[in-house]
Amino acid sequence: MTYDVATTTPEGAQRLRRVAKVCEGYGLRVQKSVFEVVCTDADVLRLNDALLRIISDTEDSIRIYRMHQGSFKAVTTLGAARPLPHDGALVL
Amino acid sequence: MTYDVATTTPEGAQRLRRVAKVCEGYGLRVQKSVFEVVCTDADVLRLNDALLRIISDTEDSIRIYRMHQGSFKAVTTLGAARPLPHDGALVL
Repeated sequence: MTYDVATTTPEGAQRLRRVAKVCEGYGLRVQKSVFEVVCTDADVLRLNDALLRIISDTEDSIRIYRMHQGSFKAVTTLGAARPLPHDGALVL
Repeated sequence: MTYDVATTTPEGAQRLRRVAKVCEGYGLRVQKSVFEVVCTDADVLRLNDALLRIISDTEDSIRIYRMHQGSFKAVTTLGAARPLPHDGALVL
């Protein structure tokens, strides 16, 4: 999942911190605004619900890409990025 | 593909602009640091090569996720994010 949260206001910066904190409970932060999450369908619903309670409908943007199993292993990394290990049933 | 480019220096800010400009030639910018690209295998190699010439090996990070066809249609968007149309053979 990837996110843009508008941080030009203190409220925006606070939303960004809250979004990151929620996501850290579910997956691995691989870039500033990118998390890789391995979880169940029920977790996806809980995560969506938690994020919707935080973000601004008009200023922030979150995109959740559902990946096939093994996709994270096949990620190409350039520069300082490194592949990370994942285990589990559903790759979000 | 997703990227973090360190922008604490003028050189970093310039690299970020150059990375974004190259990516804009290949795909759709859906967030500040996220592009969706539909392209051929040859394009992937050209894009990787162009990016490697720009980024800092130690300060910047680029991750390229290879998606299955149809994955972009299945993306979940929260907030201001919107699904975008894509056509083509290979979804990167």
